[in-house]
Amino acid sequence: MRKNGGVSVSSLGIVETQTATVFDPAHPLRMRSGATLENVEVAYETYGTLNEARNNAIYICHALTGDAHAAGHHEGEDRPGWWDNMIGPGKPIDTNRWFVVASNILGGCRGTTGPSSTNPATGEPYALDFPLLDMADFVSVHRGLARHLGIEQFAAVVGGSLGGMQVLQWALSHPADMGRALIFAASSRLTAQNIAFSAVGRQAIMRDSGFNDGQFLTRGTKPSKGLSVARMMAHITYLSEEAFQEKFGRSAQQGELSPNFGIDFAVESYLEHQGERFLSRFDPLSYLYLTRVMDYFDPFADEKALDALIADPVRFLVVSFDTDWRFSTEHSRRIVRHLEGAGLPTSFREIHSPWGHDSFLLEVEQYHETVRAFLDRAGEEIA
Amino acid sequence: MRKNGGVSVSSLGIVETQTATVFDPAHPLRMRSGATLENVEVAYETYGTLNEARNNAIYICHALTGDAHAAGHHEGEDRPGWWDNMIGPGKPIDTNRWFVVASNILGGCRGTTGPSSTNPATGEPYALDFPLLDMADFVSVHRGLARHLGIEQFAAVVGGSLGGMQVLQWALSHPADMGRALIFAASSRLTAQNIAFSAVGRQAIMRDSGFNDGQFLTRGTKPSKGLSVARMMAHITYLSEEAFQEKFGRSAQQGELSPNFGIDFAVESYLEHQGERFLSRFDPLSYLYLTRVMDYFDPFADEKALDALIADPVRFLVVSFDTDWRFSTEHSRRIVRHLEGAGLPTSFREIHSPWGHDSFLLEVEQYHETVRAFLDRAGEEIA
Repeated sequence: MRKNGGVSVSSLGIVETQTATVFDPAHPLRMRSGATLENVEVAYETYGTLNEARNNAIYICHALTGDAHAAGHHEGEDRPGWWDNMIGPGKPIDTNRWFVVASNILGGCRGTTGPSSTNPATGEPYALDFPLLDMADFVSVHRGLARHLGIEQFAAVVGGSLGGMQVLQWALSHPADMGRALIFAASSRLTAQNIAFSAVGRQAIMRDSGFNDGQFLTRGTKPSKGLSVARMMAHITYLSEEAFQEKFGRSAQQGELSPNFGIDFAVESYLEHQGERFLSRFDPLSYLYLTRVMDYFDPFADEKALDALIADPVRFLVVSFDTDWRFSTEHSRRIVRHLEGAGLPTSFREIHSPWGHDSFLLEVEQYHETVRAFLDRAGEEIA
Repeated sequence: MRKNGGVSVSSLGIVETQTATVFDPAHPLRMRSGATLENVEVAYETYGTLNEARNNAIYICHALTGDAHAAGHHEGEDRPGWWDNMIGPGKPIDTNRWFVVASNILGGCRGTTGPSSTNPATGEPYALDFPLLDMADFVSVHRGLARHLGIEQFAAVVGGSLGGMQVLQWALSHPADMGRALIFAASSRLTAQNIAFSAVGRQAIMRDSGFNDGQFLTRGTKPSKGLSVARMMAHITYLSEEAFQEKFGRSAQQGELSPNFGIDFAVESYLEHQGERFLSRFDPLSYLYLTRVMDYFDPFADEKALDALIADPVRFLVVSFDTDWRFSTEHSRRIVRHLEGAGLPTSFREIHSPWGHDSFLLEVEQYHETVRAFLDRAGEEIA
């Protein structure tokens, strides 16, 4: 098994992020909360070619801190997109066969409308006036982009972690939109411990003196320290204890341990680096909005949740990783129990990987083979 | 099994914290780092009666946020000391038989000299000029208190978590000081994940704008937000995922869930309460100093660590709890392997308890019976 290392050359070559307006004042986005958004821009990328039948499209839903740049290289950048090991010519999501669409999520901060976007009613950033989001709102915006691209049905919709939760919601509410649904390292219902981690991360941001009740963009401050603390803490949950031990153990950042309160152990250096790097690419308000959607997500609490899917079945692949302690295999099993209980065609695999939750982003051979095989069958259906 | 609930009546009755000067300019504390402290005051309590042979004493070492008030009630207070379920007449550490000494740790903030104490050289709080601490320094101060009390040997030294680490260090460096050593839910060597949690907690404190490079006491600020975030995060690691789920699940703080970014889930309310309550009783500097000692603790890295103990054996009881994921059973097993490898008489028990790391503070029947039986044998020896 290989990890998705830093610099590598994508076989997809140079790609670009595009932007589409998918909701506007004449066609506003009506949200689950009852709120509306009059303007929604979506940042997205596509890889491969849409065929004439328009039936070879695959939609990628990203996780908490992902973006539309899933694969290939942006001009002048060394690092490829975040899922470049999964998407590309000859890769499990093979762009020689599939037309792949990846978008930035509603509420995000990488080109799609979110809480730091300008509120047309005030000319200032929405900040905490941005409406609270629901998993269903992410799906509404994905569907808006599909309309914009003229795609009525995706051969598959794919995502890991929060991405997998979007896939599940989409399949439940609009099963006709897809042939297959691939859900990796996800959950249909966070545990108290999951919510606790999420809550403490938000508290770190909101208690930062730079937060200013969310008005930091107009006040010229930023809760950077709180955001980096939240990110460092979250990173602990993304790796298994075993992976932390293997990567860092108790070794020193440099040479021998030299007791102090700063960065001494290698694991401290890693976390600080992750916290700092995050600041340049992520918005504290998006972090609040997106994590909160996960806390409240609980689709099977609705007894009728599966009715639409039962009437119009989708084939599911559910994958968990045995060392994932953020969303353990038990979370995936719960999803599978609901789907199988409703008689839906569901494949479930628990994959062995030492890397914990992050495994869904990594090049784990058995995982990639499973995805490839599942999509091969989809390919035969549309051939 | 019962939990150590809020209000209960201790059979020990009213107790008081006392203070002793155990190091002074004529007899300064020489620390492991080479630094010295010219004045060390120790806050302590005692329960029961020291016998004429002075051989019925037991020393209690507290965990990260404990203090000298281990049992009984302070005048006017509803809650008894933190280990009142363990210590008292007829309890596992039976004050009808034993004379129990509990002290606040060096570097603490509950009466013993620590980083918020006045530096005699400047007349101001030490803050970050307080010397870095080592586990051996805690032991030096415990021994200072033992001298002050005229106790040459303890029948047993007892502690959980950081308390257990002190017990281990004390047994390794001064085995003649004790007959038995009881080590609960402890570690001889933190993992990378353990250090990661500890590091992020410290970062939350040090990045708080109220921290002011540690000079907050003289500046009139306090990194309260950072300290409460650190405490909330630490609390996640003190309970098992199962315990969180059983205590809180996904239930609302009040009535039905009502989506917002504040406190909505019961688990959020619990964590906020823990964070707030901590502020009134704990000092951010002590939190930095004491957690850092644990990170660096690695006594068996010294090949000669066990030499003194082999020459003068102590009987050990090592206890772990099966759902403890802060210091899992594997941590205890490592301690046991080292002790048994050196031929030392060692009893090891993994106790079933759903409560995770906090179990060592709780009234878990099998645990209490194990402690009682181990100390009964000590009692027979001195009878």
